[in-house]
Amino acid sequence: MKARVYVTLKTGILDPQGKAIEGALKSLGIEGIASVRQGKVFDIEIAPTADRAGTEKLLAAAADKLLANTVIENYRVEIL
Amino acid sequence: MKARVYVTLKTGILDPQGKAIEGALKSLGIEGIASVRQGKVFDIEIAPTADRAGTEKLLAAAADKLLANTVIENYRVEIL
Repeated sequence: MKARVYVTLKTGILDPQGKAIEGALKSLGIEGIASVRQGKVFDIEIAPTADRAGTEKLLAAAADKLLANTVIENYRVEIL
Repeated sequence: MKARVYVTLKTGILDPQGKAIEGALKSLGIEGIASVRQGKVFDIEIAPTADRAGTEKLLAAAADKLLANTVIENYRVEIL
């Protein structure tokens, strides 16, 4: 079973990396971009024996404990 | 207009970060995860005047020039 975990900054949290990318894109002559916010995506392969609900619980635990800093980041689990 | 650019490693490219995450999850007692590969996701806001086709071209240029290292990474543009 394949799944994807998206980790993005919570709204209102400053994203210096995103700001740097905005500036770099402008200097590369790429106009028309109002804002950029960077996040992480994890492509995860689960052992075949797992069921859907169990997988969602497993990945939520993985995100809570390691993949996301839940103080400043949100995460979303997607089973593919 | 909002869009998302996904940047992931090409298949066959070693992902040391993903390997480190696999190990860390095991040591945290999270079993059942066969593999982890980490990528980037960019949430981008485009100036309202842009049309869909123009936005796709703009973001492909941004990905080619900056967001992705196209030697080892693939990217996918998604208009939301």
